[in-house]
Amino acid sequence: MPKRILVINPNSTQSVTDQMSEAVESMRLPGGPQIRCETLHEGPPGVETQAQVDASTGLMLAWLARRPDLEASEAIIIGCFSDPGLFALREIYRQPVLGIGESGFNTASAIAERFASIAIVDGSLLRHRRKIRALGFEHRYCGGLAVGLGVTELADRERTFARLESVGQRLRDELGAQAIVLGCAGFSPYRAKLEDSLGVTVIDPTQAAVALALGRVV
Amino acid sequence: MPKRILVINPNSTQSVTDQMSEAVESMRLPGGPQIRCETLHEGPPGVETQAQVDASTGLMLAWLARRPDLEASEAIIIGCFSDPGLFALREIYRQPVLGIGESGFNTASAIAERFASIAIVDGSLLRHRRKIRALGFEHRYCGGLAVGLGVTELADRERTFARLESVGQRLRDELGAQAIVLGCAGFSPYRAKLEDSLGVTVIDPTQAAVALALGRVV
Amino acid sequence: MPKRILVINPNSTQSVTDQMSEAVESMRLPGGPQIRCETLHEGPPGVETQAQVDASTGLMLAWLARRPDLEASEAIIIGCFSDPGLFALREIYRQPVLGIGESGFNTASAIAERFASIAIVDGSLLRHRRKIRALGFEHRYCGGLAVGLGVTELADRERTFARLESVGQRLRDELGAQAIVLGCAGFSPYRAKLEDSLGVTVIDPTQAAVALALGRVV
Amino acid sequence: MPKRILVINPNSTQSVTDQMSEAVESMRLPGGPQIRCETLHEGPPGVETQAQVDASTGLMLAWLARRPDLEASEAIIIGCFSDPGLFALREIYRQPVLGIGESGFNTASAIAERFASIAIVDGSLLRHRRKIRALGFEHRYCGGLAVGLGVTELADRERTFARLESVGQRLRDELGAQAIVLGCAGFSPYRAKLEDSLGVTVIDPTQAAVALALGRVV
Amino acid sequence: MPKRILVINPNSTQSVTDQMSEAVESMRLPGGPQIRCETLHEGPPGVETQAQVDASTGLMLAWLARRPDLEASEAIIIGCFSDPGLFALREIYRQPVLGIGESGFNTASAIAERFASIAIVDGSLLRHRRKIRALGFEHRYCGGLAVGLGVTELADRERTFARLESVGQRLRDELGAQAIVLGCAGFSPYRAKLEDSLGVTVIDPTQAAVALALGRVV
Amino acid sequence: MPKRILVINPNSTQSVTDQMSEAVESMRLPGGPQIRCETLHEGPPGVETQAQVDASTGLMLAWLARRPDLEASEAIIIGCFSDPGLFALREIYRQPVLGIGESGFNTASAIAERFASIAIVDGSLLRHRRKIRALGFEHRYCGGLAVGLGVTELADRERTFARLESVGQRLRDELGAQAIVLGCAGFSPYRAKLEDSLGVTVIDPTQAAVALALGRVV
Repeated sequence: MPKRILVINPNSTQSVTDQMSEAVESMRLPGGPQIRCETLHEGPPGVETQAQVDASTGLMLAWLARRPDLEASEAIIIGCFSDPGLFALREIYRQPVLGIGESGFNTASAIAERFASIAIVDGSLLRHRRKIRALGFEHRYCGGLAVGLGVTELADRERTFARLESVGQRLRDELGAQAIVLGCAGFSPYRAKLEDSLGVTVIDPTQAAVALALGRVV
Repeated sequence: MPKRILVINPNSTQSVTDQMSEAVESMRLPGGPQIRCETLHEGPPGVETQAQVDASTGLMLAWLARRPDLEASEAIIIGCFSDPGLFALREIYRQPVLGIGESGFNTASAIAERFASIAIVDGSLLRHRRKIRALGFEHRYCGGLAVGLGVTELADRERTFARLESVGQRLRDELGAQAIVLGCAGFSPYRAKLEDSLGVTVIDPTQAAVALALGRVV
Repeated sequence: MPKRILVINPNSTQSVTDQMSEAVESMRLPGGPQIRCETLHEGPPGVETQAQVDASTGLMLAWLARRPDLEASEAIIIGCFSDPGLFALREIYRQPVLGIGESGFNTASAIAERFASIAIVDGSLLRHRRKIRALGFEHRYCGGLAVGLGVTELADRERTFARLESVGQRLRDELGAQAIVLGCAGFSPYRAKLEDSLGVTVIDPTQAAVALALGRVV
Repeated sequence: MPKRILVINPNSTQSVTDQMSEAVESMRLPGGPQIRCETLHEGPPGVETQAQVDASTGLMLAWLARRPDLEASEAIIIGCFSDPGLFALREIYRQPVLGIGESGFNTASAIAERFASIAIVDGSLLRHRRKIRALGFEHRYCGGLAVGLGVTELADRERTFARLESVGQRLRDELGAQAIVLGCAGFSPYRAKLEDSLGVTVIDPTQAAVALALGRVV
Repeated sequence: MPKRILVINPNSTQSVTDQMSEAVESMRLPGGPQIRCETLHEGPPGVETQAQVDASTGLMLAWLARRPDLEASEAIIIGCFSDPGLFALREIYRQPVLGIGESGFNTASAIAERFASIAIVDGSLLRHRRKIRALGFEHRYCGGLAVGLGVTELADRERTFARLESVGQRLRDELGAQAIVLGCAGFSPYRAKLEDSLGVTVIDPTQAAVALALGRVV
Repeated sequence: MPKRILVINPNSTQSVTDQMSEAVESMRLPGGPQIRCETLHEGPPGVETQAQVDASTGLMLAWLARRPDLEASEAIIIGCFSDPGLFALREIYRQPVLGIGESGFNTASAIAERFASIAIVDGSLLRHRRKIRALGFEHRYCGGLAVGLGVTELADRERTFARLESVGQRLRDELGAQAIVLGCAGFSPYRAKLEDSLGVTVIDPTQAAVALALGRVV
């Protein structure tokens, strides 16, 4: 029976789950681990505030308890850049539990000496810094920038890419970033194109976490 | 055409290359990236001294120049825990270049808050600390211990495992390690059994690096 | 109208709330701020696991929403050493929000160069370290020790004090601690006596947080 | 007999002592600790140079020796942002000895994740950084700015406030400070108004130190 | 017999060796240690890439093995700011082995609280930061700037000095550097004049290393 | 006229000054800088408490003002491991001002990756740690040990050496120190013998400071 990697999207927006699933599609291979991306329908449409981050823990635990098949996965990935419930799930489950936020930054650390991140809104950058401090990357993190677009504007893909490109250029040229972590699962469709445009490594956090999990379920 | 992940063993000992290849066997899947483990026959039997670490750079670069097919791999992994040539190759190649040492520690960082490492001999632990400082993990690294066995003794697998188990227990119980990085490619056959015995995550650095590379060649 | 300092005990054990209230009794003065210690009856008997820590946020927010009189307090203190909900409440409320855990360590930092902490059980020490890293005190924190007593044993006050004394001596003599933070609101009755016995500063975290709040509501 | 908190102004300018006393007036309560602010008449008009900082130690010790009533206070606060004599007094006295500089930053640390400071002149900012390094807050300190006004200009309160407001805005908006520590006892009259104007926590260091002391003399 | 301090210029450009020798001329004194600056003729004209840095180790070791008289020197200095072979030589030789890069920064640390560096080209600044991280000076290093001149332009001494002066002013005024380390042996002729012009300490790394060696061969 | 390096012994014990002078005797060379070691007769017999450290500043400044010939020295060294007055003198004098404590540790940093220190009494080790934190060497400092001998016992040179040897062995073997800094000017007569015995670098702080100064007065 194949090993199972579970990616939980703690928000209720199915299209985000679909994007994550699409991002890791090429890692699903015959004979390899099963990679399931699941939506936490009880979650909020987006996990944006710290209160929503904290509330995700209970929602995920209750959901996992109802889904013993998923709970038994050989690796569990929390599919939100804020890594809600990471420490709680690690206390409970023996299998590896990864957050896509931490995974993104640790992957950047394995690829480059100095790296940066992009958020949707400025308010998230404080949380990026908190995670950077918790991991120990203060001296290698160049900083973060937000695209600063609202929900409607994010739907305009050309505009979103243009903004990603312009903040990415600043991170690369002004702050010296050699790798850039996308601070939102929703940026995954732009990853490859952005990497081509900027000429520096661009990391999708879901891909990063699933890859790390692949190394844990060998 | 499949993406190619190249693992260079910078020492000339084919059995080490074979062990690395065996360790990542389950990550070779139909339709997935090709994972090639190659021996640098010009290298020393083991990369043990810092002089050998430094000399590896030139040997690897000359070898890669003669092997354009391998040089064109979409990801290059340096298969020695000392990560010889890491910064040099990164200056030259545009594709991701990973060291198994850095990959091992970054993977530990993505799985656990506090981690430790095991070396073959005490002398290597200074290099482990140097890498830990370079990465930024000083406050999360619990320390390292060596099995302290000579080449002949390492051939005795029962004895080697017993020693790994006893230093692993000390790292877990006395230093509080939640994950342990094996500081040598040659320890890979013991990984799963050691993890079972200790009940904490045990990381083989080659598996860690190949997994990270899988996330980069999507 | 006097300023109001609210201390929320996020566990449902009234005796813990009473102990906290008793610990800050001498800070309640005529004409000074009102200091109210309130029990979150919806909470668990003790906030012990990280899942309970995370769940506390929602419980506290719902409770505060039902108690506009308390919600309007000029300072809010989270009365649990794990500081549940700290970042969430700070995002929502404009008044100062303090956690007793952070307050205990910051007070130690204002009194002494090197300090340590005491927990009830070993498992909490990892959370102490996480907080120390988040605050930046890695180089001044000498370490922590647990009294290692079960609930029944903790009811035996002589035994509890004897254990606090013995771990306190080790923190002072072996690790060089000049101040010791009590890592649990329930240790407050022993603070003064332990300080006398050890001859180093012993900090009750609830007192520390209320004092810091007194400086914020002037 | 009430507990006594002694605040020593190590400079000879009585109006500064008066301002400090005024700043902590609301913390003087019936039945509570006595809070005495005393002027070191032997001191210089202002403690500005490092030589004056160092000389303060001897002056304070001699003065305390002549004033056994004050020397016996249950807490001693050094009322100068450079914390002169802090380590010397701690070696000599068993009661808590606090510096208003350290107290200001530790209080900021208990209130906010990222904080900044304001000095009178640029030259003091190096000393702020030195204190930040000694405390361990390098990664949470956003930086400092000076109002850059001379003695005469400081007498113009409107101008001083305007300058505090403008540097405070830069610390908040450009550096992301969530709390600002006033790096001079003389800024205390502006604290409340500045906090209202900026919408972030503004900390008067004397209030911070006295509050911390209140928690130590319970 | 006098003690011998050996400075190895790992590049083959004799004029660089001559400049280094000239820079330490005043430290050659009757009865004092002999200071020999030697050119590694097998080296590249300049050690610029990381591959050249790594290759220097083997070249230096082979050369030293052929020159037992030099190999027996009481102190060995690696005369390239990238400190090639530093750790390798330390493993092999019992006498002190110093790199001029590390020596420059450690000397700055002994003279000033905050310091900066100047490179020839931007690409070197990443290596400066790597060294700063390895040494532990992250919080005292203000940053680095490059003069950004090509080989031909560097031959124009007036232009080079003007550029050094302008980047030095920025390091002093914008970043607050109290000392500046010249990140290239070739800048030594400008040191004294630049120090006079800027009014802050300017450190030539070769002089720094030789001075440190003088203290080791007493 | 030769450049002048002034070493101030801030304690009044002439024999300590003589020892320092003896330690740097071999650095006095014809045509080289003059190295004068002077006793501050107004100082205490030993600078032991922090109050004495702080008081040294004023005593040294007054003394220098009375000795314009010495005050004009091209480099000033404070000959006490606690570096009294270091920041004060740097504010006043334009020439380099070095402390032997900082110089000892910075020299260790230029020679070895991990280093330790030896004090006379345990109480000084807290000050060693404070200096280590101020410099940034927390991750490279292995720790310190005291010989723990009283004044009379220190007069017994065999006993003192035996104790230095035994603590030095522990620093080397248990803590992994590759270099050891002698935390007292009075240990200088043992330096060479101790280095021979231990086989690791042993640094006399006065020699370290004078060597650094030699590099500054070229």
